[in-house]
Amino acid sequence: MQQTTLIIHGGAGNIYKGMLTDQQEKDYTEGLKYALDQGYGILRQGGAATDAVIAAIVAMEDNPLFNAGRGAVFTKKGLHEMDACIMDGKDLGAGAVAGVRNIKNPIRLANEVMLHSGHVFLSGSGAGDFALQQGLESAPDDYFFNKERYEQWIEIRDSNFYQLDHKADNLKGVAPNTDHKFGTVGAAACDAQGNIAAGTSTGGMTNKRFGRIGDSPVVGAGTYANNATCAISCTGHGEYFLRAAVAHDISCLIEYKGLSLSAACDLVVKDKLKKMGGEGGLIAVNALGESCFSYNSTGMNRGMRNSEGQEIVAFYGE
Amino acid sequence: MQQTTLIIHGGAGNIYKGMLTDQQEKDYTEGLKYALDQGYGILRQGGAATDAVIAAIVAMEDNPLFNAGRGAVFTKKGLHEMDACIMDGKDLGAGAVAGVRNIKNPIRLANEVMLHSGHVFLSGSGAGDFALQQGLESAPDDYFFNKERYEQWIEIRDSNFYQLDHKADNLKGVAPNTDHKFGTVGAAACDAQGNIAAGTSTGGMTNKRFGRIGDSPVVGAGTYANNATCAISCTGHGEYFLRAAVAHDISCLIEYKGLSLSAACDLVVKDKLKKMGGEGGLIAVNALGESCFSYNSTGMNRGMRNSEGQEIVAFYGE
Repeated sequence: MQQTTLIIHGGAGNIYKGMLTDQQEKDYTEGLKYALDQGYGILRQGGAATDAVIAAIVAMEDNPLFNAGRGAVFTKKGLHEMDACIMDGKDLGAGAVAGVRNIKNPIRLANEVMLHSGHVFLSGSGAGDFALQQGLESAPDDYFFNKERYEQWIEIRDSNFYQLDHKADNLKGVAPNTDHKFGTVGAAACDAQGNIAAGTSTGGMTNKRFGRIGDSPVVGAGTYANNATCAISCTGHGEYFLRAAVAHDISCLIEYKGLSLSAACDLVVKDKLKKMGGEGGLIAVNALGESCFSYNSTGMNRGMRNSEGQEIVAFYGE
Repeated sequence: MQQTTLIIHGGAGNIYKGMLTDQQEKDYTEGLKYALDQGYGILRQGGAATDAVIAAIVAMEDNPLFNAGRGAVFTKKGLHEMDACIMDGKDLGAGAVAGVRNIKNPIRLANEVMLHSGHVFLSGSGAGDFALQQGLESAPDDYFFNKERYEQWIEIRDSNFYQLDHKADNLKGVAPNTDHKFGTVGAAACDAQGNIAAGTSTGGMTNKRFGRIGDSPVVGAGTYANNATCAISCTGHGEYFLRAAVAHDISCLIEYKGLSLSAACDLVVKDKLKKMGGEGGLIAVNALGESCFSYNSTGMNRGMRNSEGQEIVAFYGE
């Protein structure tokens, strides 16, 4: 019998025990559980992996705890510019958007791009025009306002620093991060037909400028799905994930070298990416319903539920 | 002794003998030869692969024959929105821009992104702000005006058709292409130190809208370089190249399956990509200075020069 699995993340970074208050831990637990409920509910009813991925991500986009949708961070200009991508492992269909504003659920827009645009990757105000044409739900700037995010931004807006929402390094150009919030969200699923899909959604880096695009909306970097290998969603310092083509590299290690899902993920995340200096992590699932988390940061907000009755919600490293 | 090689393309598509007039053939030959001169001149003097790639691409960006820089096609709104990417195989450094306007040489901007932005991928007006800050040469809209391109656009601007500049299919959404011009440009090089690099620059599709981004500026799709495997620049129907992560797939076939450069290129272009329905081609070089062309279209504008004294300039299929 085909195993169904949903796996999600809400950002990786310097997350360690004692860092979150009891209330924060409770809020994150609830947020991740609710996303699992929404996404896995679709798989349980025999729904498609893509729909489960969208439902789980929408739940996190609507939750201001996460740096995606409603909780997206502020750019240098005080705006919210969001990126998202979805990929369907059945036919390698893909849709992505970069730098979109005032879209309530960027992952839904990425799905519209995949299904109805004739394209794969749309950006900026043009992607906004496409959203209007497709009747996607918009939201005013106020909807995205969040006091904590605003204060993060105020602290660094007059500098040229930018910060990953989920990172505590002192990398060149990256401000010391005093942030307790963690970022990018993603989901990967295997449905009852043995189809797999992955999606990622993010507000990017606080104080980002120059229309910076990270790995999240880039097919093969932050997001990838192929029934023959795996479905992957990444989170971390996007520039490294782009240069390493992380998600596609894992797929190739499985397809061409015969590595297992977890061996391929760990080789890329804990060895190759770490040697480059890239901090972060990812979630993965394959068409057997097997899944894994892999991260080289202290922790990663994460969750998993499958038809074997397993459920995980966790934050800290093991 | 280390072999040095420069390989370039000026777009792939339905290019067949008798299609180009003698004058057009002469103009393209001159354009490609000039690009080889500019790029190979740097390799001959012991210069870096990245600099050779930039010089060859700048030569084609400055030539209105090609759909990049000066010759960029018109968007739905009558603008010129250009994409470019460069990658350095020595350290997997990469820089890319998407949807930039009024930049004389987008490949130079991609290089600035790689060297001086702290990022990999910038887009839209934000990338334009970065160009200003870095003192990149700008050019007014007039500079990009070209009568033939304008007429191509006028023919379809009131439709929802878009067209690849170098394609004659009747794909859904793609207008029958009566165009004799061929598009996207790219270069890959191996220098005397055995370092390799690749770059790509394009105006994208005539009448494109919604801020569409193709494969050209996407690391791992239209452009990729890794000293351990290969340097690749692609041209063709970008949506397929994005979904197939073409350039990175070739790198993985070499790294993980031990395929030769040409076997890996042909497997991806003539088998995998063709089965998906993706038309186009690519150029490739490795750190031994070996190079190859691969395309599944009728022809590809292409050139190669190396330290063995070989030189190729060709258009049609063999």
